[in-house]
Amino acid sequence: MKLTKQTKILIIGLGVMGGSYARALTKQGFSVRCITKQQEDIDYALAEGMIAEGTTETRAEWIGSADLIVFALYPLTFIAWMKENAHLIKKGTVITDVSGVKSGVISEIQKLLPEGVEFISAHPMAGRERSGVAFSDDSVFKGANYIVVPTEQNTEEAILLCEDLGRALGFFRISRLSAETHDAMIAFLSQLTHCIAVSLMNCNDAPDMEKYTGDSFRDLTRIAKINENMWSELFLLNKNALLHEMDAFQKEFSAFRALLEAEDREGMKEKMRHSTSTRMKFDKPKGSTAP
Amino acid sequence: MKLTKQTKILIIGLGVMGGSYARALTKQGFSVRCITKQQEDIDYALAEGMIAEGTTETRAEWIGSADLIVFALYPLTFIAWMKENAHLIKKGTVITDVSGVKSGVISEIQKLLPEGVEFISAHPMAGRERSGVAFSDDSVFKGANYIVVPTEQNTEEAILLCEDLGRALGFFRISRLSAETHDAMIAFLSQLTHCIAVSLMNCNDAPDMEKYTGDSFRDLTRIAKINENMWSELFLLNKNALLHEMDAFQKEFSAFRALLEAEDREGMKEKMRHSTSTRMKFDKPKGSTAP
Repeated sequence: MKLTKQTKILIIGLGVMGGSYARALTKQGFSVRCITKQQEDIDYALAEGMIAEGTTETRAEWIGSADLIVFALYPLTFIAWMKENAHLIKKGTVITDVSGVKSGVISEIQKLLPEGVEFISAHPMAGRERSGVAFSDDSVFKGANYIVVPTEQNTEEAILLCEDLGRALGFFRISRLSAETHDAMIAFLSQLTHCIAVSLMNCNDAPDMEKYTGDSFRDLTRIAKINENMWSELFLLNKNALLHEMDAFQKEFSAFRALLEAEDREGMKEKMRHSTSTRMKFDKPKGSTAP
Repeated sequence: MKLTKQTKILIIGLGVMGGSYARALTKQGFSVRCITKQQEDIDYALAEGMIAEGTTETRAEWIGSADLIVFALYPLTFIAWMKENAHLIKKGTVITDVSGVKSGVISEIQKLLPEGVEFISAHPMAGRERSGVAFSDDSVFKGANYIVVPTEQNTEEAILLCEDLGRALGFFRISRLSAETHDAMIAFLSQLTHCIAVSLMNCNDAPDMEKYTGDSFRDLTRIAKINENMWSELFLLNKNALLHEMDAFQKEFSAFRALLEAEDREGMKEKMRHSTSTRMKFDKPKGSTAP
């Protein structure tokens, strides 16, 4: 199967990410159906012209006629949905997801697939701090990364279809990673940063600090405003990789603390020179929309 | 002494902060002289119309005729300068500084003051990532905090003069703090954040991470690009307060790690709810230029 404007796309879960997918795909000329929990989210999406049709029912006819199903649910909700409803998906259908962790999700979902249904997992790396369809915005895909996470059970055809979906959504860079590489990378770049921000925000309750704060503290704690339901789930599903990164960070932080305690100025400066030169690589290229 | 347009202001050290002071004060109609190391910085400042006069010499006549001297030097350079040249400052002169740490600096400087010269310390909380007069910019004072740090040895007259200076520079909020409170606050809000950013940047050297990074990692490591000479000096001058904050952070981070290891989802969510509600207080007020 190739992605064409005739491909029947069904999005399950119309939150901030499902909504952003719907907006992008409808703009591109696809006809998008949606199943979600709240009628008001469907009403909103219809009023915004984001979807062709929507329902709050588990409508067997829509599920059974879709060519491509995008699950924009939290990982455990996705797994629970599949346990109950996977039998409704027709042979030949490709399903994909938006989960922020992969190893634990993919193996569970693959066990639940009916004969002839293929699951190709993807991670659209375009987070938002707010949740809900009203905050959906497909412009966040511009300049962002879309990572396809194939396993040995995937066909090249489905992988290419998933990559085409990423391009149709407007992502800047489409890559392939193994589930293990993806999860290690996410543990470091995304989950560890959230653990640090939460801990920094919680480690000092002195009053009036906000009166004196500058931009550096604000930058480091912006993501301490966090969706606790989603992130606690993602942390647990990636527990081992995240613990590994937390330990590596603690080791490095303790080493810096030891240099300060020993008043080893040269040692601290060496650490700072290293961080300065490494950070250079992470600058956004000037005048580009690249991430 | 009151701050008037006739007050003879001398700035010692024309880097990014001294330059920003010069720009702001000259715009306000003060006549600003400057002593600094490099002739090219003086040439730049004269061409920009930032100062009335400048010299690279330790000109006794300028030092001896100034009413208000602003030391925009690194703390140890400031102390060294005073050891050599404090005798040139005339009776009745008020001197101030821009140092990011206070306890260690103020006590040292007060020991070096000639009879009749008063030192009132201040911290303009408007940092820049770049150094050098070419990056000076007085617009960073708008919306920022200016903290005056009096001791028992200061007169109310000098404190008020220093506060007037903060207002003339264009700061948003002028406050008074004790040296101990200031240093504890700075250890948490500014120095700890830099230690975290450096350690986060250094704790994982896997290649190609920059290809997949998002804004949260960029936000947390922006200040990992760091002026190692200045920050290592500031850390050492505030060693005990910073070690205290580092320990508090490590304790909180370890507690979060233990919750994850124990798969205590409710415990992690509680930490996240706390960080979310605390972080709200740190948001900049909408539509204001307040920090």
